[in-house]
Amino acid sequence: MADEGMWLFNDLPRQQLKSKYGFEPTAEWARHVMLACVRFNSGGSASFVSSTGLVLTNHHVGSDTLQKLSTPENNYLRDGFYAATREAELKTPDLELNQLVSIDDVTGRVQAAVKDGLSPADAFAARRAVMSQIEKESLDATGLRSDVVTLFGGAKYHLYRYKKYTDVRLVWAPETAAAFFGGDADNFEYPRYCLDVCLFRVYENDEPAQIEHFLKWSETGAGDGELVFVSGNPGRTSRIYTVAALKHLRDKHFPARLDFLRRLEVMLSQYSLEGPEQERRARDDLFSVQNARKAYYGMLAGLQDPDIMGAKQAAEEELLAQVKTDENLQDKQDAWQRIEAAQAARAKLMKRHELLESGMAFRSRLFRIARALVRMAEEDQKPDADRLSEFNEAGRESLLQQLYSTAPVYEDLEIATLADSLSSLAEQLGGDHPLVRRVLAGRSPQQRATQLVTGTRLADVSARRELAESGAEAITASRDPMLRLARLVDKPARNVRKKWEEEVVEAERQAYAAIADVLVATQGTDTYPDATFTLRLAYGTVAGYEENGRPVPPWTTMGGAFGHEQAHESKEPWQLPASWHEHKGDVDLTTPLNFVCTADIIGGNSGSPVINRDAELVGVIFDGNIQSLTSDYIYSDTVARAVSVHASAVKEALRSIHGAGKLADELGK
Amino acid sequence: MADEGMWLFNDLPRQQLKSKYGFEPTAEWARHVMLACVRFNSGGSASFVSSTGLVLTNHHVGSDTLQKLSTPENNYLRDGFYAATREAELKTPDLELNQLVSIDDVTGRVQAAVKDGLSPADAFAARRAVMSQIEKESLDATGLRSDVVTLFGGAKYHLYRYKKYTDVRLVWAPETAAAFFGGDADNFEYPRYCLDVCLFRVYENDEPAQIEHFLKWSETGAGDGELVFVSGNPGRTSRIYTVAALKHLRDKHFPARLDFLRRLEVMLSQYSLEGPEQERRARDDLFSVQNARKAYYGMLAGLQDPDIMGAKQAAEEELLAQVKTDENLQDKQDAWQRIEAAQAARAKLMKRHELLESGMAFRSRLFRIARALVRMAEEDQKPDADRLSEFNEAGRESLLQQLYSTAPVYEDLEIATLADSLSSLAEQLGGDHPLVRRVLAGRSPQQRATQLVTGTRLADVSARRELAESGAEAITASRDPMLRLARLVDKPARNVRKKWEEEVVEAERQAYAAIADVLVATQGTDTYPDATFTLRLAYGTVAGYEENGRPVPPWTTMGGAFGHEQAHESKEPWQLPASWHEHKGDVDLTTPLNFVCTADIIGGNSGSPVINRDAELVGVIFDGNIQSLTSDYIYSDTVARAVSVHASAVKEALRSIHGAGKLADELGK
Repeated sequence: MADEGMWLFNDLPRQQLKSKYGFEPTAEWARHVMLACVRFNSGGSASFVSSTGLVLTNHHVGSDTLQKLSTPENNYLRDGFYAATREAELKTPDLELNQLVSIDDVTGRVQAAVKDGLSPADAFAARRAVMSQIEKESLDATGLRSDVVTLFGGAKYHLYRYKKYTDVRLVWAPETAAAFFGGDADNFEYPRYCLDVCLFRVYENDEPAQIEHFLKWSETGAGDGELVFVSGNPGRTSRIYTVAALKHLRDKHFPARLDFLRRLEVMLSQYSLEGPEQERRARDDLFSVQNARKAYYGMLAGLQDPDIMGAKQAAEEELLAQVKTDENLQDKQDAWQRIEAAQAARAKLMKRHELLESGMAFRSRLFRIARALVRMAEEDQKPDADRLSEFNEAGRESLLQQLYSTAPVYEDLEIATLADSLSSLAEQLGGDHPLVRRVLAGRSPQQRATQLVTGTRLADVSARRELAESGAEAITASRDPMLRLARLVDKPARNVRKKWEEEVVEAERQAYAAIADVLVATQGTDTYPDATFTLRLAYGTVAGYEENGRPVPPWTTMGGAFGHEQAHESKEPWQLPASWHEHKGDVDLTTPLNFVCTADIIGGNSGSPVINRDAELVGVIFDGNIQSLTSDYIYSDTVARAVSVHASAVKEALRSIHGAGKLADELGK
Repeated sequence: MADEGMWLFNDLPRQQLKSKYGFEPTAEWARHVMLACVRFNSGGSASFVSSTGLVLTNHHVGSDTLQKLSTPENNYLRDGFYAATREAELKTPDLELNQLVSIDDVTGRVQAAVKDGLSPADAFAARRAVMSQIEKESLDATGLRSDVVTLFGGAKYHLYRYKKYTDVRLVWAPETAAAFFGGDADNFEYPRYCLDVCLFRVYENDEPAQIEHFLKWSETGAGDGELVFVSGNPGRTSRIYTVAALKHLRDKHFPARLDFLRRLEVMLSQYSLEGPEQERRARDDLFSVQNARKAYYGMLAGLQDPDIMGAKQAAEEELLAQVKTDENLQDKQDAWQRIEAAQAARAKLMKRHELLESGMAFRSRLFRIARALVRMAEEDQKPDADRLSEFNEAGRESLLQQLYSTAPVYEDLEIATLADSLSSLAEQLGGDHPLVRRVLAGRSPQQRATQLVTGTRLADVSARRELAESGAEAITASRDPMLRLARLVDKPARNVRKKWEEEVVEAERQAYAAIADVLVATQGTDTYPDATFTLRLAYGTVAGYEENGRPVPPWTTMGGAFGHEQAHESKEPWQLPASWHEHKGDVDLTTPLNFVCTADIIGGNSGSPVINRDAELVGVIFDGNIQSLTSDYIYSDTVARAVSVHASAVKEALRSIHGAGKLADELGK
């Protein structure tokens, strides 16, 4: 039995853990771990690691914030940061951290609201209405952020309540050269040597928050073969996908994403060549794009591997054979055809959906702000239950946190990305397409982007606030060119979104709910839903593996980092930061730096704590190896591994390299 | 009157030159210049610059050869090369240089062979047959390479005869850091500071060839405003293109090329990250791809500029109005619709044509060799006139020169590029397409590429020779996996090629011939055909320009290169080589390094000599500025400029930096 699964905290795999590892998580253990975890809404996982509000995550999860806090004078993303005093801790411009505090099953109420026989449009609307109603009621009753989460593709609905932390301050981050040592070349490779961690602190009422449930620090880490747990928020998996859906990923979705990512990568690389300041401005975006590109290559390669697709095909055929012979499942038989039909809808709609609604044609923070203002004004005139879900009352605080972010807006970078994406719109729809003509308004993409970005007032936070508070009429009357563009494309964008929600989202939700029922009927209830960027528990053991006939040991050490640097002649990106060389003599070079385990993770798990049976922190997830990239749709523990920073390396680096012994002493206490 | 035009050597713009510049090129002048020029068949232009066979071209034209001559121990591409003695000159593995010696108009004979009323298929075949017959007769009669060139889109046909040089040796090349100073960032920018030149020598009978017509060396260069000429081989322009054809470029062709180039760029960059040896192996390919990508961005941006497209549209409407009112032109009226129909055929066929026939699905030198062997064996069984044109007798020597090239084949790079392109085939046709399944033979693209590259014997030149000489049966019987793949895809590739030739090539040739007739009727005969990678003469003046309201002076200096390096803090790619720093004190820093002029050039002109009225060499073309990228379809001398290396910098660098005074003394003598 493999260590597969991203398990719900209200439905842990107690039987498997007991029989395979002789471990029985108590309710207290599970509740403690759940409360000790936090989600970065910017994308990523983390944990409380002190009673004084310290939050440990990956450097690459914090990098979005490090980028926003950096200036031409203080490049914290590249050079790192350490606040020696509380006063020196830096308030972040828009971070929201979520601590899951309760889970309730609301499946019955959701399903009851969606009557049989409704059209897809009505079913979608009814479901959206009841979900927003549940969220609103919960928010009013508890004051907590309340999200209804769709599980098992639509078979179950759970209400997740979160305590929100919005006063989050940066405490410490290492240099990128240490956190992302080996860069794009080593990304997804193993052995690795990355100190991919950083520390924030949550505040309440301008004081460090007092945290009851935080993780203790393991002083030794986990041994080879030891059972470990990963508690975090895996973003998205596709394991329930039918073969038809996987083929859509293989032949349409992944190739299109890769074209888009390569386009962005080349554009941002070119922009970065313009000078060191441009390189600084684009750094985090470029990293994200390169990381995603490498991940998608792996995901696509897996689906092009006949062994993997063959295994999926065989499993599906077996399941269909069972369905055919089981009378109780006869009415589920057409679910697979309905998924196939939904893929045809995806293929037909995807280009316009991506361009207009996902915003690939308008890649600009200022445009996203403009769209939020335009849509918020319109949606707020409707009853809560009828609104586009991101404008529900329950999510308003989080929305405004983003909308009023003080993160810097770089005019030249905005122009570069917007011009490139406007060109992409013209290329994909054709230069003579009426919408393209209206969007470009008689200008070239470059000219139009320049006009929009230099002409809008939306870079100014007070202007956003003023517009948001002045209501729909003022926004309609505004001459701000970016607002006018957002209004211009809103109708076609809403049109394609509506079609997408009905023909793809709702159609798949109903069909996957049927398939989930079949799985329960044929394989039992002891299973986990696909990832949904909500808290899950995975488990596995610390374990090396074999590659090209040679054993890859589970650990690397801090001394190994210096060796890896030397093996690459200290050439970029294999240059450890000056601080490491300066303090090499102070560092215990035998300190473990990274390690691998078999736990089942995916993007979104970045920053997740790795803990032992005693719920002590032994590491922080930061990557999967290249063989794990197929875990989007299939799990294997033969050679796929989760990669973590070892807990000991964090303390050793703080004490011996960063002169932050005081901070190291706070950890786990 | 602008300095527009890439003029035929047998139809020079005598009237314009006389009236605008008071210069009348004599027949002797023209013949001397023509004979002093050579074409690099690998793509590029050059000139004879000594009686002793020295050939001057760009470093980036020679870089293909520098790459092939380089080894892990001697990286001539990066580090440069200098043969202090004749014995040390390095024989190149597959270069062929062509010296144009005569031009004959064969339009009448070609047109007579294509009877009115033939189907497109028969018209294409008849035209191909008469052209190969003319070439064969000429070869037999003169022993010279003989090419029939299609001009004015199909209105005229000229027979070009070339003396071939195939014993070409490398004499000197500077470091890439000097030749391509500023790298991808500075590419197509101005002011520039590049020593983008290198020197070869042609040999005959193992002795330096004695050259009668070579260019003298101007000791002063050309002054501001001075008339200069560029004599070289512009590759391809689209100035006769109708608006429908330009829209196809804008909406289909350029976007597809850019997706392809970005894909290659990312793939080669990733491969290069694997280590210094991989970086060395991929260097020239990566440079070419980045250069093309930047050029296509500029070409696409121009077509997305409403001013440019508006000008094209207005000109076309004016012309169509003239056609309507001129009785003699009534039968040409439908040419524009025929071009539009051909664009629909292009759009329909382009994906399969690019993948299967242009080989985008099989990017591997070993595959190209395999295809050449398979096709040559089949074509050689047909009469010369019926063959695919690249297998005609007239071109056989050149074909074998490439086929038997001793240039190194790198197994890992072959696997990387082939795997990526096989994946591209699967993505574009879909993983379940029968052809994709047959090509991949039950393997993933990576597995299949590895099997093909490690299994073939075609890396061995003697194996190629043996197979080529053993004939069709042996090739059909061969179990070599790459040969078998080439055979497998040959039929579908030939099918799409045939359709392409009939529905696109022949249809456009007939329609553009009609349009060319209209242009002659309405605008006179005093014009030039679109570029065809054959020898042309352009003219213009040395002239700065204005950018963002600031004057850009025409010249830079060698001293300016050091300043440019300092302005970029000597960071890559702004690091001059050690040799420049070592000899900075010896160099006359006021020596002009680069300059711009208004001459009408395009890709393929790289390496063209720039000469003065006395046919003395004053520079070598190596680039256009970013504003010139639209010259594919429209010429402007407002801000578009051709960029050259100044003749004086070549001698100064040889003498003061490279210790090659002896070589400098040979130049122009």
